[in-house]
Amino acid sequence: MRELTAKPLTAKAFSAFGDVIDIESASKSFSMNYEMATRYYDLADIDVNDHDGKTCISLVKSNAVKLPFEPMMMEYHPFGSQLFHPLGDIPFLILVAPPAEKLDSNKLELFISNGKQGVNYHKGVWHHYLIPLEEDSGFIVVDRKADDNNCVETELDSKVVLKL
Amino acid sequence: MRELTAKPLTAKAFSAFGDVIDIESASKSFSMNYEMATRYYDLADIDVNDHDGKTCISLVKSNAVKLPFEPMMMEYHPFGSQLFHPLGDIPFLILVAPPAEKLDSNKLELFISNGKQGVNYHKGVWHHYLIPLEEDSGFIVVDRKADDNNCVETELDSKVVLKL
Repeated sequence: MRELTAKPLTAKAFSAFGDVIDIESASKSFSMNYEMATRYYDLADIDVNDHDGKTCISLVKSNAVKLPFEPMMMEYHPFGSQLFHPLGDIPFLILVAPPAEKLDSNKLELFISNGKQGVNYHKGVWHHYLIPLEEDSGFIVVDRKADDNNCVETELDSKVVLKL
Repeated sequence: MRELTAKPLTAKAFSAFGDVIDIESASKSFSMNYEMATRYYDLADIDVNDHDGKTCISLVKSNAVKLPFEPMMMEYHPFGSQLFHPLGDIPFLILVAPPAEKLDSNKLELFISNGKQGVNYHKGVWHHYLIPLEEDSGFIVVDRKADDNNCVETELDSKVVLKL
């Protein structure tokens, strides 16, 4: 049984998989609303328009995952990116692998959000479903809507356990 | 000086101006992640593709607005919708007026989010900038990016004061 220990989520470390939605790693920001507010601008590549796809907004409420956790399945979306941002201060794990037709469990990487950071998986990136560490966690989701099958799922080909 | 008192934000009352992003008013929901989570699906009409516009994700940090508050300016976006969702439990006011070339202050309506509800202004809807009632409020924004001028601003043509 291979153990994966969570690394801090940074824009650089996560760049092969997607975007980190995070004030600290924003490259463009400006004052607005007559100096009342600061906007951290253009933080994610929302890529959902393949085959007439449109941007879809959802909310998700999730139970907590208990650690150590043994993932069974991974998925990817061939036609669109998928963004999750926590509503509140919710640490969560992010398990990913690079785009490939067949998932390679040796290429899995595990990150942890500090609770204020969201992620945007780029099109085709293998990822696990949401792994929040607190009960009754809420997220906003920005992904793709269209009348087609945009989810490929597979079982892990070797045993892995996730740890902090 | 006309007084405007905030009404509770409901999908029905807000329907002339945009969408309410809210678990309670979701019309479609389903279980996912092997029964670990519930997804409240397709909560907003993200309408940003005019003139090659793309979906833009930003974060905003805002100071609080002190009540009673006298708004001076309103704005609308001719080419795209604009969504704000609070990150945490942040009550905020929403001041809007129906789409029109010239703002009619007599048609202003004031709503209050319960802190868990977001809003998505439809294209062309007159709205005030963010009016959070708590310091250091965070929001995620889903709107439009493109190389054109997508903001029309005007002064209010009569005095109004906002109250809870």
